[in-house]
Amino acid sequence: MTTEIPGTIRVSRTVAFGDCDPAGIAYTRRLFDYCLEAIDEAWKYVLDGKGWYELSTDHDRGTPFVNITMDFTGPVTPRDTLDLIVRLSRVGQSSITFEVSARQAGRDCFKGIFTSVVVERQIMTKVRSDDWTLHQLKAWAKV
Amino acid sequence: MTTEIPGTIRVSRTVAFGDCDPAGIAYTRRLFDYCLEAIDEAWKYVLDGKGWYELSTDHDRGTPFVNITMDFTGPVTPRDTLDLIVRLSRVGQSSITFEVSARQAGRDCFKGIFTSVVVERQIMTKVRSDDWTLHQLKAWAKV
Amino acid sequence: MTTEIPGTIRVSRTVAFGDCDPAGIAYTRRLFDYCLEAIDEAWKYVLDGKGWYELSTDHDRGTPFVNITMDFTGPVTPRDTLDLIVRLSRVGQSSITFEVSARQAGRDCFKGIFTSVVVERQIMTKVRSDDWTLHQLKAWAKV
Amino acid sequence: MTTEIPGTIRVSRTVAFGDCDPAGIAYTRRLFDYCLEAIDEAWKYVLDGKGWYELSTDHDRGTPFVNITMDFTGPVTPRDTLDLIVRLSRVGQSSITFEVSARQAGRDCFKGIFTSVVVERQIMTKVRSDDWTLHQLKAWAKV
Repeated sequence: MTTEIPGTIRVSRTVAFGDCDPAGIAYTRRLFDYCLEAIDEAWKYVLDGKGWYELSTDHDRGTPFVNITMDFTGPVTPRDTLDLIVRLSRVGQSSITFEVSARQAGRDCFKGIFTSVVVERQIMTKVRSDDWTLHQLKAWAKV
Repeated sequence: MTTEIPGTIRVSRTVAFGDCDPAGIAYTRRLFDYCLEAIDEAWKYVLDGKGWYELSTDHDRGTPFVNITMDFTGPVTPRDTLDLIVRLSRVGQSSITFEVSARQAGRDCFKGIFTSVVVERQIMTKVRSDDWTLHQLKAWAKV
Repeated sequence: MTTEIPGTIRVSRTVAFGDCDPAGIAYTRRLFDYCLEAIDEAWKYVLDGKGWYELSTDHDRGTPFVNITMDFTGPVTPRDTLDLIVRLSRVGQSSITFEVSARQAGRDCFKGIFTSVVVERQIMTKVRSDDWTLHQLKAWAKV
Repeated sequence: MTTEIPGTIRVSRTVAFGDCDPAGIAYTRRLFDYCLEAIDEAWKYVLDGKGWYELSTDHDRGTPFVNITMDFTGPVTPRDTLDLIVRLSRVGQSSITFEVSARQAGRDCFKGIFTSVVVERQIMTKVRSDDWTLHQLKAWAKV
């Protein structure tokens, strides 16, 4: 995982045989899953190792998705590394939006827009706009 | 699985323990997956048992997704049956759109819009607008 | 799901397109998963609807696996319903063993032996041999 | 991925939030999956990048499992890297056995024994004992 641009990380990963369907390409569900895992990596990057697990278990925070939109432009196969770029594009009052775009062997494969609300888990209530999580995200992305 | 309305099927399913994450609710990936499995059931219903597997293996057809949009409005848990309504909302020249909405215990949980292109698999080319698959979908949905 | 023999349930299920790998058969991981889901159904059957989720969330019980052994004798495809027979074969001091065998279209496909320990979740300690969970399992299976 | 000992590779990986169940630990299915992905990496290591996908798609070879046995000794969480050691322990006439052991934060977590048959995919027949795949495995593992 590397990052050069504010608010952006890059994750490279293999595509497993077991991720593919009888058509011989990565099954759509797995593309979705790759995005979620890459967004979790972005959280860890911004919050010094605190991803969804630590947020949920240690810090009483959750980030349920409210909307996800994905466009698929090309097949994904196990033959090449898949590169995912995760960009934090918006931090609102209590919601945040990540954009994920994926390329393989020089071709665009898919991209998605993932909007979450940050909540206090126990009481399932949106955090205030000055919550430490939003603060750190804004500082990172300069948004 | 039952159907009463043209172009619509209903699928009821359990939510497994293993579908849930440490927050104790079904992990977002699985909601996505539930939609895909329900759409596959719709294909089987319309094409006399031919789902994605048979289309791919026996009939040289594939239905790659080009766009998926989902809204999440409430958590899904293993405590109740999850009801999914799949509706074929549009049949275009070679593309089709399914809408899936899910309810549990009287509450709306999520809904999604899933647009695919129907292709001849070997040559990865869009089918013609009079393809037998589109013909049967139109007849079913009266669209 | 039906049951006729003490300590035994039968679960029938579809095999999804997305469960299959590029070889066109259900990927080994999914066979494993089918067994886990069927064992969870057995718990629900015996404990009046309390499966792993309810045991974990409401009753401070967990059933971590200590050993799993599986034999694979034939491929599984989406063409036919898969029938799984779950049998509770042993209830020990605090451990239990389920055997799962699967058939499709008249052929044996795989079978597995799944041994768990029943624990109090909070303190992660084996339950006593007179725990209510073991008591109900014994009464059901007559073992 | 590194290797120092003949017939052995080491794979380190993260454990994702979405791999965990409501008990807050990696769900048993995923441990199984980690082993399969690590064994696929071993194939790629030995056969110059040819894993299950390439074997299946380009070389008419499959490696269906005939038996899998796993012992689970400790929970796996997202807090630490998981280290998997894959060892090719046996190459028979047409069958092969991999052993996988996993450790996290200095503790043993699980280990498994995975036996496959190597087949010619089209005709689903065991390969001969002088098949190139077995030859390369033997040379690597010195067994």
